[in-house]
Amino acid sequence: MHELHTQPHHDGSARYAPVRPTRIGDRYAVRVRVPAAFGDVASMSVRVVSDGEPCFHAMATSAAQPDGGVEWWEGAFAVPNPISKYRFLLNMADGSARWLSADGVDRLEPLDAHDFRVTIHPSPPEWASAQVMYQIFPDRFARSEAAARRTRPAWSRAAEWSEQVISKGPDTQRQVFGGDLDGIVDRLDHLERIGATLIYLTPFFPAESNHRYDASSFDRVDPLLGGDDALIRLVEAAHARGIRVIGDLTTNHTGAAHEWFAAAYGDPEAAEADFYYWENDEQTEYVAWYGVPSLPKLNWNSEALRRRFIDGDESVVAKWLRPPFNLDGWRVDVANMTGRLGADDLNREVQTAVRRTLEQASSGGVLYAESTNDAAADFDGEGWQAPMSYSAFTRPLWHWLRSPRERPLHHFGIPFATEPRYSAADVVASYRRFTAPYPWAVRELAMNAIDTHDTPRFAHQADDHAQIVAAGLSMTLPGTPVVFAGDEFGLRGENGEDSRTPLPWGEEPRLADAYGRLSRLRRESRALQRGGLRWLYADDECLVFVRELEDEACLVFASRAAAVARVPLTAVGAVASQEVDFGMVGVESDEDGIRLTSSGPSLSVWLLHTSAASGGDPGVAKVAAGDLVAGVR
Amino acid sequence: MHELHTQPHHDGSARYAPVRPTRIGDRYAVRVRVPAAFGDVASMSVRVVSDGEPCFHAMATSAAQPDGGVEWWEGAFAVPNPISKYRFLLNMADGSARWLSADGVDRLEPLDAHDFRVTIHPSPPEWASAQVMYQIFPDRFARSEAAARRTRPAWSRAAEWSEQVISKGPDTQRQVFGGDLDGIVDRLDHLERIGATLIYLTPFFPAESNHRYDASSFDRVDPLLGGDDALIRLVEAAHARGIRVIGDLTTNHTGAAHEWFAAAYGDPEAAEADFYYWENDEQTEYVAWYGVPSLPKLNWNSEALRRRFIDGDESVVAKWLRPPFNLDGWRVDVANMTGRLGADDLNREVQTAVRRTLEQASSGGVLYAESTNDAAADFDGEGWQAPMSYSAFTRPLWHWLRSPRERPLHHFGIPFATEPRYSAADVVASYRRFTAPYPWAVRELAMNAIDTHDTPRFAHQADDHAQIVAAGLSMTLPGTPVVFAGDEFGLRGENGEDSRTPLPWGEEPRLADAYGRLSRLRRESRALQRGGLRWLYADDECLVFVRELEDEACLVFASRAAAVARVPLTAVGAVASQEVDFGMVGVESDEDGIRLTSSGPSLSVWLLHTSAASGGDPGVAKVAAGDLVAGVR
Repeated sequence: MHELHTQPHHDGSARYAPVRPTRIGDRYAVRVRVPAAFGDVASMSVRVVSDGEPCFHAMATSAAQPDGGVEWWEGAFAVPNPISKYRFLLNMADGSARWLSADGVDRLEPLDAHDFRVTIHPSPPEWASAQVMYQIFPDRFARSEAAARRTRPAWSRAAEWSEQVISKGPDTQRQVFGGDLDGIVDRLDHLERIGATLIYLTPFFPAESNHRYDASSFDRVDPLLGGDDALIRLVEAAHARGIRVIGDLTTNHTGAAHEWFAAAYGDPEAAEADFYYWENDEQTEYVAWYGVPSLPKLNWNSEALRRRFIDGDESVVAKWLRPPFNLDGWRVDVANMTGRLGADDLNREVQTAVRRTLEQASSGGVLYAESTNDAAADFDGEGWQAPMSYSAFTRPLWHWLRSPRERPLHHFGIPFATEPRYSAADVVASYRRFTAPYPWAVRELAMNAIDTHDTPRFAHQADDHAQIVAAGLSMTLPGTPVVFAGDEFGLRGENGEDSRTPLPWGEEPRLADAYGRLSRLRRESRALQRGGLRWLYADDECLVFVRELEDEACLVFASRAAAVARVPLTAVGAVASQEVDFGMVGVESDEDGIRLTSSGPSLSVWLLHTSAASGGDPGVAKVAAGDLVAGVR
Repeated sequence: MHELHTQPHHDGSARYAPVRPTRIGDRYAVRVRVPAAFGDVASMSVRVVSDGEPCFHAMATSAAQPDGGVEWWEGAFAVPNPISKYRFLLNMADGSARWLSADGVDRLEPLDAHDFRVTIHPSPPEWASAQVMYQIFPDRFARSEAAARRTRPAWSRAAEWSEQVISKGPDTQRQVFGGDLDGIVDRLDHLERIGATLIYLTPFFPAESNHRYDASSFDRVDPLLGGDDALIRLVEAAHARGIRVIGDLTTNHTGAAHEWFAAAYGDPEAAEADFYYWENDEQTEYVAWYGVPSLPKLNWNSEALRRRFIDGDESVVAKWLRPPFNLDGWRVDVANMTGRLGADDLNREVQTAVRRTLEQASSGGVLYAESTNDAAADFDGEGWQAPMSYSAFTRPLWHWLRSPRERPLHHFGIPFATEPRYSAADVVASYRRFTAPYPWAVRELAMNAIDTHDTPRFAHQADDHAQIVAAGLSMTLPGTPVVFAGDEFGLRGENGEDSRTPLPWGEEPRLADAYGRLSRLRRESRALQRGGLRWLYADDECLVFVRELEDEACLVFASRAAAVARVPLTAVGAVASQEVDFGMVGVESDEDGIRLTSSGPSLSVWLLHTSAASGGDPGVAKVAAGDLVAGVR
């Protein structure tokens, strides 16, 4: 169905659930918006799973009903459990019934797995949802003057900055270009131009590879990057510009060169003996990540490992969040496999310990965690704050926006013969499917990356216009927009290795201004940061949605090709039947509604006025921001 | 889509997964059946979530391909975790891709929640899947001679056998008809006529209500039922006829008159002090189930409670499974709420402890557990063996087969204004949705009840013909068929209380023979007990499916009204293009396929011949059993 605006809507955002509960028993108020086109709703209840059993609470129509085009229903319940599931039952005037769950409307009873979830666990810090993340792979970002003088380590193969990246074979991980942390300090102007506000550094610990996911210590910054002092300099310089910095932790494994592993290897008496999974009594054979000998898997049954790594003020997790380093949080690598091996599943214990330590050590750090596929089970607001996943956003966008080409891409090992071809409606369905189970607090921060250091570059399979559409969606959908450093140069790369291109600093970053404008919009719009997400329309070529708070709302139109979308006036804006002053080419408005047209790939955003924002005067349009990404139209 | 036979199929049954793994690392072989009508599959992989991360294993077409109508694909993987999730990726010859998960085929990447699940946990006993369960509410089943002479307890209101059930008000639970266990012994001939092989007794412990879910002790059988000796007599008499007996345990709560509660109430020093949730230090205020004071909630944080009730040979769970009582297993009441309260969730610990004790105390007991709605999260083969749920089977059948009537029924508190009206296709979709997440071992035992002591009687909302259709589906779908004692008399009842009618022994049980024939079919057909389930067709009025083993298969056709279904010959039977000898009115066969017709509510079952069963001779039909339920056609 293309006409998504006819559907009733709820999500966990402030407009639909004004107050986040913090304790069991807190009253949680919920609202549902029902367009007239959906049909007459005779009664509505909210169904809550309480201690394992569904209970129903009657709802009522809101006293304040703006007009005939939309009806609001309201209800409330006492939050029964730390993570509570709920959905809505709509009895229609015609005698039929509908269920509204996070995955949409269904005639048939839905699964609890599709319920909305509300959590009493603490919310991430207020600032978190306002960030534009910029992912930096330190070896490839920039070299400071000092970097040029450093000797590359013995295991490495030193590369000139202009050299081709070796994307396959034994030298792939040894090819070291020598980027360092002071190189980032030197380029903070560039980050500001892009509009980045949160640097995500892939690992900075010493290691025996260019990616450093095989840490040899968690106690110091790799001297090749400039050592501890360089990290302090970077964080200070970034903070001075209002830019935050997070690091990257490998909780699943260490490098085989790690000091813990060195101590434990062959020595059952070592203090670190139980940090790993040994396969013989001599402790010389061990479980490694995917059998890669350089990556021994950590054994979280060890209390000593927990104390050393994740638990309490003396732990690795805490150390780098405290002065003098002052990191603003962590991204956790291979979080979905952490603590899981055969019959062991200690994942949740690791999650909650890291979260607790983070909250104690820093006044509001963020905690992202990698979970490459369906991340629903691991992300309910208790532990990791938000997923770095590819199922909800990245892959659906690739499938929609790619140029038709025959060469199969790397897809995290999914053995597609040909990359699937999605419609915009498929993007909406996939995005909804994979984000539905998250509590809103998780959705607000979920990383929306169009590519990362582990994927092909988006530009490898799509042109600049398509890339801006994709980047624009990362900036306008709920979640943390992610720019992988180099995307602004339109860099290409056919897989994760190939994408780790040294940034071509001599060139003009031809997409930098588009990114900058999108970032600015995101940073300035509370609706884009925290507003609910209501889909209005989707077909093969385009999609339309609204992000909305009580007093601010944005309309977003994205297309892959020439496209036309119609939405009724009542569907747009926070107040039904308000007139909207667009003034953009491609937008026409008549009494039937709004007609959005594009002649090619496009991404447009308009601020809508709402009753609160316009002081109740329906005649005054607030902002027309449709020219933000005019460059790609 | 009506033509379900065009879809590829896999399930966890022996035909599709011949060997159940018992240890991590065991090889698990899987097969997928692809009808030619689905299109050409160029390659296939099985995706397995291993320690949290998806891995793909290539599959190949089977060496033995019976003919052009169906293609079999085979693959295998080493089982990575105690409960492993898997699904299939089909690369089509046209370049597109499809996913096959337990919920069916999808173009878009599905959720892990819809994956097939395979478990290494021990299977239920072999005999379990061959049972026809007969649920007896002891107060209402039958009175022995001794019962008539017993004095009813002070709290009760003695009722004559012919009295009307009080279905509302304070006397509902006090009205005692005085049925007893010897009354059941006297009626075992009747059970044999029905074809019952497994008696499920609702609680037999002493209590202060007629339903006895408010036990005052777990140490003895209610004297009103005849005491311990009567239970011993019942189990012995039943066993002598090959009929098994299970009891009913309340792990969520006890009665307020329970000896544990009496000891703990007001006495913080009592050995049982921590068995309950107290709200004041004096232990006079407590948490009760839904706030009902007579049902204090058990607190499973108590180790002492675990030892007393569920853990080890001296526990309540074990005692009744051992001589002299020799129960064959348990049904667990309110299992979905057990151990859950606010921030506590000890449910899994209770499950696994009960299961462990059951396995140690009895040589193969069964363990059913009540979970009234979506039971997916709690039933993965580790703890409870199978759900007594209403989402997958009971409610969809009600919605499909009910007579159109205006009076809303009780639906476990779902506040429908009007009972939904489902099509047969909706029944299939709902059944598939709610059973998809179960491992096959769970699906084989899941209780398929058309009604129970907690629901309206099926006959309250449907005629005899519709009831036989429903009962026939309970006997032919995977899972344990359940007959609530009295259904064979066509008893009515508008809610759970009202349904607990004393059995009218003077009357002829007019549906007894139909039940008897269905039960016999079920007991004699290994395909109906353990065969895979492949849907062939469903529209508004009818549905068609096959249950299949390698050497035996059944075809089932059920309709609500006049209906026609067509299925191609290749879709029927275990071997494609085999000819099938039906010979029933309403079945025609030509080169295009089989045409099934009914002129009203109907349920028909045919045994199909397969290559193994027919010795490879496609010309010999094995059995035509279509006249089994001729009475309703």
